[in-house]
Amino acid sequence: VNVEGRHHRTVWLEGSDLCLIDQRLLPYRFEVLRAADHRATAEAIADMTVRGAGAIGAAGGFGMAQGVLEAPEDAFEAYVADAAARLRATRPTAQNLFYAIDRVLAAITPPASVGDFAGARVAAVQEAQHIADQDAEACRRIGEHGAMLVPDGARVSTHCNAGWLAFVDWGSALSPVYAAIRQGKAVFVWVDETRPRSQGSKLTAWELVQEGVPHRVLCDGASASYMARGEVDMVIVGSDRIAANGDVANKIGTYPAALAAREAGIPFYVAAPTSTIDPDCPSGDAIPIEERDPDEVLYVWGRDDDGRLTRVRIAPAPSGARNPAFDVTPAKLVRGIITEFGVVSATPEGIARALSARDAAWHRR
Amino acid sequence: VNVEGRHHRTVWLEGSDLCLIDQRLLPYRFEVLRAADHRATAEAIADMTVRGAGAIGAAGGFGMAQGVLEAPEDAFEAYVADAAARLRATRPTAQNLFYAIDRVLAAITPPASVGDFAGARVAAVQEAQHIADQDAEACRRIGEHGAMLVPDGARVSTHCNAGWLAFVDWGSALSPVYAAIRQGKAVFVWVDETRPRSQGSKLTAWELVQEGVPHRVLCDGASASYMARGEVDMVIVGSDRIAANGDVANKIGTYPAALAAREAGIPFYVAAPTSTIDPDCPSGDAIPIEERDPDEVLYVWGRDDDGRLTRVRIAPAPSGARNPAFDVTPAKLVRGIITEFGVVSATPEGIARALSARDAAWHRR
Repeated sequence: VNVEGRHHRTVWLEGSDLCLIDQRLLPYRFEVLRAADHRATAEAIADMTVRGAGAIGAAGGFGMAQGVLEAPEDAFEAYVADAAARLRATRPTAQNLFYAIDRVLAAITPPASVGDFAGARVAAVQEAQHIADQDAEACRRIGEHGAMLVPDGARVSTHCNAGWLAFVDWGSALSPVYAAIRQGKAVFVWVDETRPRSQGSKLTAWELVQEGVPHRVLCDGASASYMARGEVDMVIVGSDRIAANGDVANKIGTYPAALAAREAGIPFYVAAPTSTIDPDCPSGDAIPIEERDPDEVLYVWGRDDDGRLTRVRIAPAPSGARNPAFDVTPAKLVRGIITEFGVVSATPEGIARALSARDAAWHRR
Repeated sequence: VNVEGRHHRTVWLEGSDLCLIDQRLLPYRFEVLRAADHRATAEAIADMTVRGAGAIGAAGGFGMAQGVLEAPEDAFEAYVADAAARLRATRPTAQNLFYAIDRVLAAITPPASVGDFAGARVAAVQEAQHIADQDAEACRRIGEHGAMLVPDGARVSTHCNAGWLAFVDWGSALSPVYAAIRQGKAVFVWVDETRPRSQGSKLTAWELVQEGVPHRVLCDGASASYMARGEVDMVIVGSDRIAANGDVANKIGTYPAALAAREAGIPFYVAAPTSTIDPDCPSGDAIPIEERDPDEVLYVWGRDDDGRLTRVRIAPAPSGARNPAFDVTPAKLVRGIITEFGVVSATPEGIARALSARDAAWHRR
């Protein structure tokens, strides 16, 4: 996607540095952070310099490759295992993170096991790059499949940011919007601001400005009313983990949006590459939900009238908060899951279909 | 309710000045604003120095009395009508405002119609004071009736601020909590932060701190998850207008909370004095919904780390927002309406019962 006329991915490798768009500074400043080793990459994932399912996955894969590049030959396995553990500990809900780490580990195992450390390093970098490229391609195809569901003139509601910033390119929930617009359709987007970190008003709105897509920001409590009043045609959100039964973990606030969509008779779609599916997770109850610092709720970060990035406290000093980062939307509320292999139902059968399509593609590669 | 050991109402008359707790400065500073005439009072209502159903009603009644005190004898009727129109134009959804203005106008009509301007002035002040006293007493009784619904150990979820700051004293939604605690029950409150103006994290949390009630602040999108996980026993909210069929207008975000409560099988109560009922409003569709400045969504006010009250922008410069202040919760989602005359069903019959109880009390006075 273009930023000020230049095409960017959100995450890419330059030498052994991982370059990441610093999403904490958007929409105010566009800056690229260089993470020189796997520790810096893990920190960038944990502090949400990079966030979003696919972008976390790609960063995790590249971070794992950095760990392999750094590993000393006399303690190779222990160093790599330690790097994997450090990267895994950054964001507990993000399935794409574990998916990418596991893929890089699997790719290095044969050469490293015969003492071919140079071969393992090449394999790690190649696999991490392949994960990032696959993510971008999967999201492009999610756009193609999803655009068929978006009618001309559609008013789409979305929660949080599942645009290209959340992936390597294109995005999941916003990819059908971008594809529909490229097909000449008119699309309007209702943007949930998405407290506590305001990824809707800060990131989704910024992406839509870059792409020239008409939109309005709503407080999280307001989108249900617009659905009830007939001013929303469909909801599309992303996901951080999809269980084998079709339950969907996504940014906190997604579940009440799904309830409001059902009540209004509006289709509620989840857009996600199959890398977000966790086949080992039987249902939403088994998805670990990350709880973040209460200060994210008690303070709001933004730019003051003098242009300074600053935080303001919005609660009395003695008050505490709870801050679960994700919620679980039961499969029954999901009209369909838009994957790179087409739209599948949010059922065990639908999830199995998507996974076998992935396996088939894997064996063809 | 006590603030730093001293009992306060939210709104009271001193001479011809209306004194108002400046709710825009809470929870950071406790200050009382003096509105010297009805114009200043109207401004304080419009800019939300005073807000909340009963507090707006009391301020509107006192503002109307100020208008009557100011009115010149040679243009009495025109001046009073102009003051009424100015006060009515401040907050279009707030039923208590119209209720109070109409009561003061009705009280002055007999003396003014025979040229007894002094009598009209006395009647206006007395009626405004009576409205404020009735509000405090109604809220106290809402607490008594509501406390019976609150079990020991209850975890109550509430949205926005319908505490004593929203009324003259005691509050509506929080009054049952305060009463239950005075009965020796343990009560925990989940506080929705209530974007865009954060009346939950700023006002409800501050009240609960003053009263020593354990609580945690949640982002608006998070309370549905806590309901689904079995961590909420009941929801109690206030209301800005109740239609004759039991539909309820309240702060934006109330409707999705009601949907989540139904899905979780949790009772959803509305606490409101009968002055909030609009018998001329057949259903929620007929309730006018105030739309406020989009900047309330695009900016957040709070206190920065240097102690300054400041605002921060959380969206890109080109992005706009929509800002409806209220939503409508359909009667079918409301388990009961806690009024000063007891709990009634959110049905035409329940509303009629509450109104006849009010009429009977009126004739007894």
